[in-house]
Amino acid sequence: MSSADPGVEPPPERTVVDDAQLALLLEVTGTPKPGNVDRAHDHDDLRFEHFMAGGIGARCGLELAADGERLGRAFERAIAGMSQQRAGNTQFGALLVLVPLVRAAAEGELSGERAGDLAAATTVADAADFYRAFEHVDVAVDDPPAGMDALDVRRGAEAVPAVEDRGVTLYDVMADSVEVDGIAREWTGEFARTFEAAERLLDRDGPVPDRAARVFLELLAEEPDTFVATQHDRETAREATERAAAALADGDPWALANEFVAEGINPGTTADLTAAALFVALERGLEI
Amino acid sequence: MSSADPGVEPPPERTVVDDAQLALLLEVTGTPKPGNVDRAHDHDDLRFEHFMAGGIGARCGLELAADGERLGRAFERAIAGMSQQRAGNTQFGALLVLVPLVRAAAEGELSGERAGDLAAATTVADAADFYRAFEHVDVAVDDPPAGMDALDVRRGAEAVPAVEDRGVTLYDVMADSVEVDGIAREWTGEFARTFEAAERLLDRDGPVPDRAARVFLELLAEEPDTFVATQHDRETAREATERAAAALADGDPWALANEFVAEGINPGTTADLTAAALFVALERGLEI
Repeated sequence: MSSADPGVEPPPERTVVDDAQLALLLEVTGTPKPGNVDRAHDHDDLRFEHFMAGGIGARCGLELAADGERLGRAFERAIAGMSQQRAGNTQFGALLVLVPLVRAAAEGELSGERAGDLAAATTVADAADFYRAFEHVDVAVDDPPAGMDALDVRRGAEAVPAVEDRGVTLYDVMADSVEVDGIAREWTGEFARTFEAAERLLDRDGPVPDRAARVFLELLAEEPDTFVATQHDRETAREATERAAAALADGDPWALANEFVAEGINPGTTADLTAAALFVALERGLEI
Repeated sequence: MSSADPGVEPPPERTVVDDAQLALLLEVTGTPKPGNVDRAHDHDDLRFEHFMAGGIGARCGLELAADGERLGRAFERAIAGMSQQRAGNTQFGALLVLVPLVRAAAEGELSGERAGDLAAATTVADAADFYRAFEHVDVAVDDPPAGMDALDVRRGAEAVPAVEDRGVTLYDVMADSVEVDGIAREWTGEFARTFEAAERLLDRDGPVPDRAARVFLELLAEEPDTFVATQHDRETAREATERAAAALADGDPWALANEFVAEGINPGTTADLTAAALFVALERGLEI
């Protein structure tokens, strides 16, 4: 249509926060992502619609991250908002990896180096916020190392005095978890896997959820999922990775999806990284 | 967990705009909604992820509606934002019915009467905005009545001078379309079907997307879909309604979903009303 009327403004662009929310929605849309809730799979008490509500509810915290609030506080508010649906934890890990990326993007410099600097600059107050976030949802985590009971995240806000006494920053918390948490490795490793996966999403063809499902499977085939290791054990996580590699090779991730659901294998950390990669790709021009 | 730390604030509630976006996402999640894109069905060039992006992109306009901007302008911005994905029109009708409801909810009085008053109070400027919205997407509409070519919405912004010359308000545009558009009937009829359907969503049990799919089928069985009438003809729309009633009676909407997709029957207006009903139900306490 021609425009004889000068009153038509160009469409608004999606904001950084819009892209973060859309990334959360696209992550759960991609299928099959073996073992995870996705467009074609539900768990008994954790269903697709809970991820919709979690992604919408997280907005207030994502806005704080974009607006310059300290990262721990933005994360805690995102989790609080995410938790306002009946299934509890839907996107805890995804929001943890997204928050520094959202800040970096809002500042106009979305790079792994910049996000890594923001992670490194977190404080004791951020760590206290992180512990408070555990008040809003139950998250599966490992027992803390010997002598670290006072800092068990499962203590939630009760652990804040110990966090403050010991002067632990959020970056310190992440650095202490790199052996057992793939999100912590992103925080302390300049978000290397996230940015690499984003490039794959941008380079491929086809519907974006299909690309996301493929990249999820590749990530899982490349490195054991730490959430599977936490919920089961390292051997199960290593086997899950081998099975993902086999599914990539024989081209049937649907069968693996059914097996993982039946066995209760839920590679949630790999899904979290996929969400973060979708965010970076959207910010870099990925079209839906 | 106990809270020895006073620093944990209650979770934030979803805002009115959050609920409007979540309603759009839940609408497309509910399946089967025969003939429509839903969690289990795509069309060739109109897929689930386009509705995710459309729902996220509409936010800026929904915020304007909540903030007191004139309804036409809020709608035009919502459509402009919605259009920022490759499939074009995803939620035009849903946003048209949502915008007065969002304003009413933001004012603290979400009732059919109040939303009807807001609709009746729209101006010529709102009508001009409505025409401008057609610059952003192609929408299937009927030919205008005899002598009304100057006001054909397909002329988009080009029609604005004629709209202004004739002093047509957005309510007038809706009132002129009640015979051919189920959304217009909501605007001019105190959103009666929307509020009635919201009560059904609240009264039922089970996952909310399943309730939405059921209510969609009931609405379709009760009244011919005007979008089907526009794309095909009134007879096809009447038959689609009879087939929906039969599917309700024999309990197999999945077969009907396959048939409608194969025949290109897309009861989009009924889906739009379902989205609006989900919004009202969420505002009235529907839990996800």
